[in-house]
Amino acid sequence: MMSTPTTVDTLIHADWIVPVLPHGVVLENHSIALTGDRISALLPTAEAQSIEAKRVIALPGHALMPGLVNCHGHAAMSLLRGYADDQPLMPWLEEHIWPAEEAHVSEEFVADGTELAIAEMIRSGTTTFSDMYFFPNACAATAQRLGMRCQITFPIFDFPTAWGQDADDYIRKGLALRDNFKHSALVTVVFGPHAPYTVCEANLAKVATLAAELDTPVHIHLHETAGEVLLAVEQNGERPLDTLNRLGLLGPRTQCVHMTDLGDQDIALLAATGAHVVHCPQSNMKLASGTCRVRALLDHGVNVALGTDSAASNNDLNLFGEMQSAALLAKLHTQDATALPAADALAMATINGARAMGLEDRIGSLETGKQADLIAVDLRGPETQPLYHPLSQLVYACNGSQVSHSWIAGEQVMANRELSRIDLNALTRRIDQWQRRIATGPGAA
Amino acid sequence: MMSTPTTVDTLIHADWIVPVLPHGVVLENHSIALTGDRISALLPTAEAQSIEAKRVIALPGHALMPGLVNCHGHAAMSLLRGYADDQPLMPWLEEHIWPAEEAHVSEEFVADGTELAIAEMIRSGTTTFSDMYFFPNACAATAQRLGMRCQITFPIFDFPTAWGQDADDYIRKGLALRDNFKHSALVTVVFGPHAPYTVCEANLAKVATLAAELDTPVHIHLHETAGEVLLAVEQNGERPLDTLNRLGLLGPRTQCVHMTDLGDQDIALLAATGAHVVHCPQSNMKLASGTCRVRALLDHGVNVALGTDSAASNNDLNLFGEMQSAALLAKLHTQDATALPAADALAMATINGARAMGLEDRIGSLETGKQADLIAVDLRGPETQPLYHPLSQLVYACNGSQVSHSWIAGEQVMANRELSRIDLNALTRRIDQWQRRIATGPGAA
Repeated sequence: MMSTPTTVDTLIHADWIVPVLPHGVVLENHSIALTGDRISALLPTAEAQSIEAKRVIALPGHALMPGLVNCHGHAAMSLLRGYADDQPLMPWLEEHIWPAEEAHVSEEFVADGTELAIAEMIRSGTTTFSDMYFFPNACAATAQRLGMRCQITFPIFDFPTAWGQDADDYIRKGLALRDNFKHSALVTVVFGPHAPYTVCEANLAKVATLAAELDTPVHIHLHETAGEVLLAVEQNGERPLDTLNRLGLLGPRTQCVHMTDLGDQDIALLAATGAHVVHCPQSNMKLASGTCRVRALLDHGVNVALGTDSAASNNDLNLFGEMQSAALLAKLHTQDATALPAADALAMATINGARAMGLEDRIGSLETGKQADLIAVDLRGPETQPLYHPLSQLVYACNGSQVSHSWIAGEQVMANRELSRIDLNALTRRIDQWQRRIATGPGAA
Repeated sequence: MMSTPTTVDTLIHADWIVPVLPHGVVLENHSIALTGDRISALLPTAEAQSIEAKRVIALPGHALMPGLVNCHGHAAMSLLRGYADDQPLMPWLEEHIWPAEEAHVSEEFVADGTELAIAEMIRSGTTTFSDMYFFPNACAATAQRLGMRCQITFPIFDFPTAWGQDADDYIRKGLALRDNFKHSALVTVVFGPHAPYTVCEANLAKVATLAAELDTPVHIHLHETAGEVLLAVEQNGERPLDTLNRLGLLGPRTQCVHMTDLGDQDIALLAATGAHVVHCPQSNMKLASGTCRVRALLDHGVNVALGTDSAASNNDLNLFGEMQSAALLAKLHTQDATALPAADALAMATINGARAMGLEDRIGSLETGKQADLIAVDLRGPETQPLYHPLSQLVYACNGSQVSHSWIAGEQVMANRELSRIDLNALTRRIDQWQRRIATGPGAA
C-alpha cells in the first residue's frame, strides 16, 4: 500500500467507483486522486477530506471507471463509415473498400480519419485503442498530438500497398516508427502481420524472430471466418492457428483477432501458449463471419479482449455497444443466460485489453500507481434509472452517450462531453471535403 | 394527391426525409408541413416557400423520419431495470421478478414506471408503444396524459393476479377499459392473452370469438423458447401455433411475440393466415431464448415488427439499438451479410409495427394525411460523419441519443432533447423512492 498523499492535482468524488480490479467490485462513497499522469490515491471520501487538491471535481450520480480499451480497429477507415453496407465480404472489399482506399488513402487521409475516430472513441469512453492501417506514422502522430493512448500495429503484407513494397519494407518502416516513438508515454508500436493468408510463412517466421528479440507484441487477423480456416487446411494441411504455433508466433505476446472458428483443440492451444484473443462481436455479426466462443475461452483461462473493428464494418467505434453485444451474443450462443455476466464484459473492455497489449501494469483498472486513464459515466438520466446494480447499468443500459468526462495520463480530454483537444467544427469541415471526394470517386456505392 | 395547403401549423425543413414508404427512399431538400394532428404536406423545400406557417423549424444536418413503433413491452417494469441480471429465466422470474411484483405492483407503480418508460422511449425516438401489464388502466391513463400513442394489450390469465381473478374477470375489465378509451385518438385497447401456457384453450377460444366480433387485435407471447414448444407438443400433441390456429386465433389481427422456434411449417401457417410476428432480438439474446428467423419470415411475406420487451430483460427501451441488433443478428444467423439491410430494419421499426397493430392507415410512415408522428435525428456529430447513405447511418451508426425532436399527433413532445410534458426531476425523485422500497423488499438480488 502506498501512503495517502497530502497534496494532489485533482481529486474526484463520485457516487460509484468501478475499479475493475478486484473483479466485480463497486465502491460507494469513494474518491480518486490524480497526480501528474497517475492515480495517486483511491480511498473513502471521508478519508479524502484531508487531501489538498489543486482541483476538486464532484460528480454526483456518476460512476468512475477505467477508460475502455479498444483492442482492434482501423481508425482512419471512419472516413468510409456506411460507405457500402449490407454487402457480402468479398464484393464489399473488392468493389468498394479497396478501390476507394486505392484512390484516396494518404497520410492526410489517415490523419483526418484518425482524428474523427478519436473524437468518437473519447465520446464513448475509450481511452486506448489499437490500430492497424496504412501510414501508421500518421495515426501515431495524430494520437500523440491529441493525447490519446494507442497501440500502433504497423501492417505487414507480402505485396505492395500505398505504404510499402514487401514484408521487409513494411518491417523496416515499422521498426523505424517504433524507434521514433520509443520514448512516447502514449504510443506503443508493435508488429501487425495482416493475416496468415496475406503474409507467407517465411515472413511470419521473420516476425516471430524479431518480436521475440524485441519482446514486442504481434497483432494478427486470425480465423475470422470458417471459410478462411477451411481454405488454409486445404492448402497447407493445417489450421492457421497451428501454422502460427509451428512458426513460433503463438505466445503471450500474440493478439489473435476475431477467432470465430474455434475448435476445442484451438482453445487448448491458445490456453497453453498464453496467446490473447480479441473479440469483435458487432463486426463479426455484420459481416456474417461467425461467433467467437468467448465463454469457453474464458473458462479455459484464455484472455479475451474486445475490439470494434473499423467504422466501415460496424458502423461505430463504441465499446459500450460492444460490451453489450458481447454479453448478449455469448448468452444466445451458449443458450445460457448466465454466460458472460456484466462484470466479465466490463473486464474484457478494460483490463483484458490492457493484458492483451502487455500494458496491464499501466492501464485497464483503477489502482494507485497506474496511469490516470479514467472516465466518468453520468447515470442520472431516465435510461439508467432506477439503479440497483451499477455494473448491470454500465453494460446493459448505457449506450456510451452517458460518458461525461475522460482523462488520459492525467490530462482531462473531455469535460461535460466537450473535447478539450479536438475542434469538432474544423474537423467536420475537413470530413465534409473527404466525403465529397470519396462519394464521387472509385468504389462509390 | 392532395393539393398543397396554403397555411399550416408547422413547417419543418430538414436535409433528409426518410418517409419509409416508398421503401428505401431518402428525400433530399424536402419539407414537411403539419396541420392539427396530421401531416398536411410533404414536398420539395423549393415548393414549400409559398406555404404560410405559424411556425417554421429549420433542421440542417437532421433526418426526419416516422416515429418508431415499439410493438412489445411491459413499460412499468422499467422500475425493475437491472434488478436481477445474468440469471436463467426461471430463477430470474421465480426468485426475483415475481416476488418483487407481488410486493410492489399497484396502480401507482404502473403509473410511475410507465412515465419513466415513456421518457426513455421518446428520448430514443419511439412515438408508439405496445404494452402488456397489470393495471393497464394506469398505463393507458399515463400515456394519454403524456401525449404518447400506445396499444394497451390488457392481460388475460387463467389465474388470479394483482389486477384480476380469472379470464372472465380480466376480459370484463379489459373490455371496460376499451370502452373508456374508445374515443381516444392515442390509446387503443386490445386483447392480451398472456401465452398458450398460461391461458387454457377454452379461454383462448373465448378471446378468438370476442376479437373477431369486435374486430380487435390479439397480442400473445408465442414460441418464446424451444422448451415452451417442446413442452406443448408433449402435453397437447401439437405446436402452440397450431393450437392457436385450431382455436381460430391466428389471423391478420394476431400479433405473435418472440417466435424464436420457427419451423418451415410455422412460417407457411403464419403467411397463410396473415398473422404478424413481433421480433424482440435483444431480449431473446439476453434471456438466451433463441433466434427468430426474420429473413425467412419476410421472404414468405409475413409482416415482422420490432419490440424491446421490458427494461428488466433488455435493459433499455431503445428501438435504435433493436434495429441494429435485428439487422446484425439476421446476418449472423443466415450467414449472409446482405440479409436484413438497413431499409428493412427501419421498416420493421415503423410501418411493420403499424401494420401489426392495424394502424397502418394512421402511422408508420410520413405520408400526407397520416398522423403527424415523426422524429428528427441529428446526424452532425462525429459518430455519424461522414454520411454517404442516411439509411445506413440511422440503423448502423445511431444509438438513439441523436434523436433531437419528436412530434406525436402533431404535438411537439420533445425539442432539442427537452421533453415538453415530463418533469424529469420530479420523475427521478419518485423513481428514487421506488428504488429504495424495491431494493430492500422481496426478490432483491
